[in-house]
Formats: sequence, structure tokens, C-alpha cells
Amino acid sequence: MEPMNEQLDPDGRLRHLLTLDGLPRPVMEALLDRAQAIVDHGVAGAPLAGQAVCTLFFEPSTRTRMSFQRAAQRLGADVLAFDASTSSTTKGETALDTLRNIEAMGVRGFVVRHAADGAVASLAAAAGAGTALVNAGDGRSAHPTQGLLDMLTLRQAKGRDFSALKVVIVGDIRHSRVARSDLHALRTLGAGEIRVCAPASLLPTDATLDGCQVFDDFDAALDGVDAVMMLRLQRERMEEGLVPSLEGYHRDYGLTMARLRRAAAEAVVLHPGPMNRGVEIDDEVADGPQSLILRQVANGVAVRAAVLEALLG
Amino acid sequence: MEPMNEQLDPDGRLRHLLTLDGLPRPVMEALLDRAQAIVDHGVAGAPLAGQAVCTLFFEPSTRTRMSFQRAAQRLGADVLAFDASTSSTTKGETALDTLRNIEAMGVRGFVVRHAADGAVASLAAAAGAGTALVNAGDGRSAHPTQGLLDMLTLRQAKGRDFSALKVVIVGDIRHSRVARSDLHALRTLGAGEIRVCAPASLLPTDATLDGCQVFDDFDAALDGVDAVMMLRLQRERMEEGLVPSLEGYHRDYGLTMARLRRAAAEAVVLHPGPMNRGVEIDDEVADGPQSLILRQVANGVAVRAAVLEALLG
Amino acid sequence: MEPMNEQLDPDGRLRHLLTLDGLPRPVMEALLDRAQAIVDHGVAGAPLAGQAVCTLFFEPSTRTRMSFQRAAQRLGADVLAFDASTSSTTKGETALDTLRNIEAMGVRGFVVRHAADGAVASLAAAAGAGTALVNAGDGRSAHPTQGLLDMLTLRQAKGRDFSALKVVIVGDIRHSRVARSDLHALRTLGAGEIRVCAPASLLPTDATLDGCQVFDDFDAALDGVDAVMMLRLQRERMEEGLVPSLEGYHRDYGLTMARLRRAAAEAVVLHPGPMNRGVEIDDEVADGPQSLILRQVANGVAVRAAVLEALLG
Repeated sequence: MEPMNEQLDPDGRLRHLLTLDGLPRPVMEALLDRAQAIVDHGVAGAPLAGQAVCTLFFEPSTRTRMSFQRAAQRLGADVLAFDASTSSTTKGETALDTLRNIEAMGVRGFVVRHAADGAVASLAAAAGAGTALVNAGDGRSAHPTQGLLDMLTLRQAKGRDFSALKVVIVGDIRHSRVARSDLHALRTLGAGEIRVCAPASLLPTDATLDGCQVFDDFDAALDGVDAVMMLRLQRERMEEGLVPSLEGYHRDYGLTMARLRRAAAEAVVLHPGPMNRGVEIDDEVADGPQSLILRQVANGVAVRAAVLEALLG
Repeated sequence: MEPMNEQLDPDGRLRHLLTLDGLPRPVMEALLDRAQAIVDHGVAGAPLAGQAVCTLFFEPSTRTRMSFQRAAQRLGADVLAFDASTSSTTKGETALDTLRNIEAMGVRGFVVRHAADGAVASLAAAAGAGTALVNAGDGRSAHPTQGLLDMLTLRQAKGRDFSALKVVIVGDIRHSRVARSDLHALRTLGAGEIRVCAPASLLPTDATLDGCQVFDDFDAALDGVDAVMMLRLQRERMEEGLVPSLEGYHRDYGLTMARLRRAAAEAVVLHPGPMNRGVEIDDEVADGPQSLILRQVANGVAVRAAVLEALLG
Repeated sequence: MEPMNEQLDPDGRLRHLLTLDGLPRPVMEALLDRAQAIVDHGVAGAPLAGQAVCTLFFEPSTRTRMSFQRAAQRLGADVLAFDASTSSTTKGETALDTLRNIEAMGVRGFVVRHAADGAVASLAAAAGAGTALVNAGDGRSAHPTQGLLDMLTLRQAKGRDFSALKVVIVGDIRHSRVARSDLHALRTLGAGEIRVCAPASLLPTDATLDGCQVFDDFDAALDGVDAVMMLRLQRERMEEGLVPSLEGYHRDYGLTMARLRRAAAEAVVLHPGPMNRGVEIDDEVADGPQSLILRQVANGVAVRAAVLEALLG
């Protein structure tokens, strides 16, 4: 079964949000439109009052969890947090038993992060009929609300029509669920030109990059782009020998003001956070006028509220 | 002083819920009736709006804590969580000082778990006049809301009249507060026949089993019963030498489909969770049509809401 | 820039609460009056409904965090907790990036604790225009809501006019932000006589004690005082060699009933908690009729609600 079928019901309504891969453009645009309305006008009333949303994190992430928590609060939902990465009380219980138990407590909405690719989709396939899951990141596969918030941020800066947009995604694409969700969304929304840039050791070897222009030279990749989407460099890439040093990475793939001038005059800069300042991005850029990084965070709450509302409203 | 006197005021009204031992049958049945009404019709409005309930856990338990949290949320109460098992800020403070401090913050309802037998009753005895404690498990002594939710689950399946009911409790009764609270409740509600089954090493040597039929042969114990109440096997029993091996335990005391056929045709299966699948219970049974395990979890929220409402409403 | 200017806007309105040092007496008294009204009459309605308050703790403190959480709940605010002391997800992010991110999620109120002196003021200086910070303790410098709740407690016991009040602060003043905030407040409110008492090793060597009478003999320091404000002895003072032993500290600086009789007949005893019973304070005193220690905790919620309301209402 296609992922898109798993997350849509027979009438094409969203049942879960697992991936942006195959998510129909009208569904994606409806979510973005609703998120934009929440940015502009807030949420009226408490559409999810009396309902509970559980953040079920098998891999820790304070910031993504807080963003979803704030989104649920803005909808008037109660929030339950289950930190499976530290809970000593799961006591060897399977992830599915944990989900089913919390489901039995009357919780219909789950925000799930898991280190294994496909784990959230597997849980969704086994969940009850009325239960909705949002993938808050699984392995290297998908982080769909990050992809949506990045698209919302690009739309605000560059307009709804992406057909003339030149975008470059820079960094550890190989291990990044953010990059994969961004690529899925950019393709669906018809971005004019999608570039990726990384050292060969950080490029995926599967079909992830189909249709992208691949660069290893950052200066060339930046030439004339409208948006630069930076990725976080995980320090374990050094330990794994995939990157020689932080200094070397910064020299070749760090976004400096000098480099940014190669992009289009009005080019914008995105980063999913948390940033390694001085490694993949310089302070001047991160805090400069072209940076949309804090706008991304603000959009994240609105996107997540739109998704939870669509699933549970 | 009798436990029942500690938890009832002179008019027989519930002040705390510490144990089911000695809890009068009308009080117990009123709680079960109210919980059933919550299962059937939900909670109207927010009867505890403006009040705060604190989960004060000196022993970790994510699931029980979440169940109480959800119950408090359904009543419209604010929830404060104090995880005394990991808090570095108690800094050697006594449990009583911790309780009194949170009490002074204006919190009237406490859900307390503690590793020591009697610790929750001691705290209740020292608490302020308007404060109500719910024992969420103390040592091996009592876990009264688990006992109540098990009784609610049995009532739903078998009717309110337990006089013809044959029940067997299986597993580590010696170390189990769940078993003790179930036994207290089954006796009070007049269960027709109460059997227990365990290897001798896991049987209590005190008065816990008074009036029970004791089996060490699981097949014999199952013969004709209407309900099988399984207990979780803690892995430390192996380290303590009380159980030879997980495989041996499963062979002698694991509930398989083949074994379950010895029980009555409509027999139901309960387990307090989390389950050790393949040790005390097989997947086929746990996920089969006779299993009420997820119903127990759902009932847990309703029972806890009924208890909190009775104490704080 | 003076701290008082950092926390007041040009119209003299409170923008942040960073320290009591230099906080104008009318501002301080207005907060105390409002807190007293909350003690007497509660909070009407939900003045902060729809707003979010984030507890951002770079140093752990369950009790102070809970007190602020309860205060925010009483105002109807949503609460987000960010425990930066254990979060693995800050991943080297700066405190300022963490603040800015949560700010971007639409959170305007922050309750911040940090181990470094001045860290909260630095964050406040860099925060957005609409953001308000409450210092919940920074290094040894300030813990202003503790100072305010201590003043509220003294006012309730001794009246609003402190001009005839004799107060002694006892213990590890050198390392105590509580002592510093108490000293700032006592001076501003015109306390008649301020004494401090500690072994020389626990006295500050800076301007903290300007205008105080300094004692190393506890018996002499207690003579005729109206209020005894005890401090917690951190056990690391032993390891650092600043205090010879717990027994020796108790002998010289422990508040016993016998010692308390040297104070005025109606003298009251305060302690910020958590107490080391049998070290700096005896059970008889802590639980005796002159102790206001639990009253302090109750006042803490009201003071914090008054502060959050003043900043965010």
C-alpha cells in the first residue's frame, strides 16, 4: 500500500499525517492555507476542547514536542506527554502496546517520534479506527510538519506559485528526514529548480535525489537561488568519519555572508534548528535580514495546529 | 486504627482512598456505579475547575500517572506532576515535607505512589484537614484504583452479582499490590469462588490468601473459571531465584489459548499491564476475543475520575 | 544601565522582574498588595486565558517551577515546561537561541532560572519587545519572587510598617540569592534593623552587607529580633571546607527552641525550603507555632501570580 493511501481515507480525507511523499497537492495546500489563516487570525474558540493529544516520543526532542504542545493548547486540547525514551515504566512493553494503552485512555490524537524508519506508519496501521497519528519524525524518512512549515515560510516570502523558485538544500541530506520531507513538498508544489549540495559522504544513494541538481561545490550551488535551506550537522558525523572536522565543514559548507551574496538579491535562508552557529551557519546570516529561521518556528505552531485540527476537528 | 477508618470520615464519607481492605460495600459500589456512568455518558462540565491535582510519585510509573492525569483533565482540574523518583530538588527533604509544601500551594488532591508499604496512609494521616490522598500503589500492600477498575471490568462482562462468579488470580501474588486489592474487592463484593495460582515461591505467607483456594497447578486452577486475572512477572524474581527462568515460567504459568480452553466457555482474561508477552501471557490470548485488557485501561480513567470527584467534588 | 532601568519601561511600568535591587518601593508595594488580594480573594476569571507561560530552567528546581506553574494555572494561562538542565535536545544551542525559539512559538512570559549571575538579565536584554522574563533565581545574585514572598509573609505577621522591625538573616549568605533579594527588599521597605549571622567563611566580601549588623555569634544575633530568616545549608559547603561538619554547624548556627527564646516573644521564623531538619533548623521550630514556613509557600503562589499578571495582563 502506498503511504498516501495509508494516510488518506477512501474519500481522500486525511486520517494520519505520516509523510509528504504522495500527499496530494490539494490536501497539502489546504493545510498550508489553514495554517496561514491561523498565523493571520489565530484560532477562534477551542475546537478541540475535551479532547486529548498525546506526544509519544520514542526519541527525545524537546522543541518539536513543545511546538506540538503549544499547537494543541491553542486548539483547547488537553495534552499528555509520554517520553518513551526515558520512561522506566514501559518495562519492555512494545511501542504498539504503549500506543494501544494510551488510546484506551480515550486519547484520539498522537504525535509520534521514533528512531526507526517506518515505525510511525506501522503504528498508524495498527491503531484503532478513530485514532489519528502525526509523524513527528521517523528515522531518516520523514518529518512532514517540518516540510509543511518550511513550505509555509517559503510561500510567505516568495508567493504561492513556486514554479519560478530556485531552492537549494545544503548539508547532511543522507541522514535527514527534514530534507526528504522538504524534497517531497517542493516537488508536489512544483518548485522550478531544486538543488542539493553536500559532500559525497552526506548524499543519499537511493532515489531521494531524483530530479534534483546535485552539487558538491557550495559556491556554485548558491548561484542565483531564491532560497537556501540549511540542515543541521550532527556531531556524530565526525565520529563516523563522514566529515573531517567542524572547521573543514564550515570552510566548505558553512553559510557565510560572503557566500550568501552569490544567491539572488532577495534570497531567504531557512534552518530547522537547533543551529550549530559557526559550523553550518554564521551568526551574521542566522541573525541577518534574510534569515527566516524564527519565522519557521512561529509557522511550526500554526502548521501543527492546522494538522491536528484537520485530523481531530 | 483500622485502614477503613483512616479513609472514611465519621459520617462514612470517603476522605482518602488508601486501600480496598475494609472499604464498605456500599462505598465501593457507589464508586463503581459512578465510574460506569462516566463510561456511558462522560463527565458533564468541569466539576473540578479551578482545583489542582498533584501526582506525587516516589516510585516511577508513567502509565498509572497518565491515567490519573487524564481522569483529572476530564474533570476540568489542573494537574501538577511531581516525580520524586527523579527530582534532584527534593534534596533530602522528607516525603511529608514535600507533601506539605505542595499542599501549601493550594493543592487539595494528591495521587501518591510509594515503594514502602503504608507510606501513603502515613502521609494521609499527617495531611491537612481538607487534603485528599489517593493511593496509586504502596509497596506490596494496595493499589485500590486498580482493584476498582478490575471490578468494573468484571461487572461489565459478568453482571453486578458476583455470587456465582469463579475467579482465579495467577502469578506473583506474594509481591503484588494489584492482587491484594483485587482480593479485598472480590471478597467485599461477594465473589462466589476465589482461586489463586502460583508457584510456592510467589505465594504470600501471611493472611492475604484467607478464604482462597490455592493452586500450584495452573491447568487445575483454570478448570471452569469465569475470569482469569493474570499478574505481571517482574524480571527481578529471576535474579532473586524465585523463578527458574522465563521459559520455565511460561511453561508452567503462561496463559496460552490451549490452557484458556479449560476455563468456562465465556471466560474473560484480565491483566494490569504492562504485559510480558510470551512470558505470563501469549499474544493470541492478550489480543484475542476473551481479553478485556484494553477495556481495563479505559475503565481505569473512569474509575479514577469517579474517585477524584468523590474526594474533591 | 541600572538593573532597575532594565526591568522598568520609561513610564516606570514593570517589563521584567529581574531583581529587587533598585525596584522602586511603590512598584514593590503594589505587587505585595495585589498578592495579598489574591491570598484573600483568589483570582477572578482567567485573566491570562489563551496566553502561555514557559518555565525555562537551566538549573533544576521542582518546587519553584511548580509554584510558578500553579500561579500561571490560577491565572488561566497555559504552561510549557522546558527543562534545559536535562534536555538532550538543546544540542549545544545557546540559551538565547532557546529563548528566541520558544518566544517564536508565541510565548510571551518566561520564568527563567540559571546558574550564572546575570544570565537572566542578559536574556531579558536580548528578548523581543513584547516578552517578559521573571528571574526565578540566577547564580548568587537574585531570586526576587522569593524576596517578595518573604516580605508578604512578614507583612502578614508584623504589619505593613517595617520601620520598627528587627530581622536577622542566618546562614550561608555568601552563596545565597535568597539572602540578597531579602536584603534588597528589607532595605527598600525600610526595615528598622537588619542583622546577618554566619561564620566568616559564609559571609560575602562585597557590598551585599552594607548597612547590616554582622554577627558570628548566633545567640547574640537573635537577641530581641522580631523575625528570624533561616537559609538552607548546601551540603557542598562541607566538601568545599567552608563548614567543618553538619553537627558543628547545627551546634553553632542551628535554630533550636532554646535559641529561639532569645528572640522577641512573638518572633516569627522563615525558611525558603527545602529544609535540612536537624542541621540549620530543628523539627520543634520548623513545625512550631512561630514557624511561617508553609505560609511562605502559600504566599509564593500568590506573589508569582501577581508578578505574572503585572507583566502579562
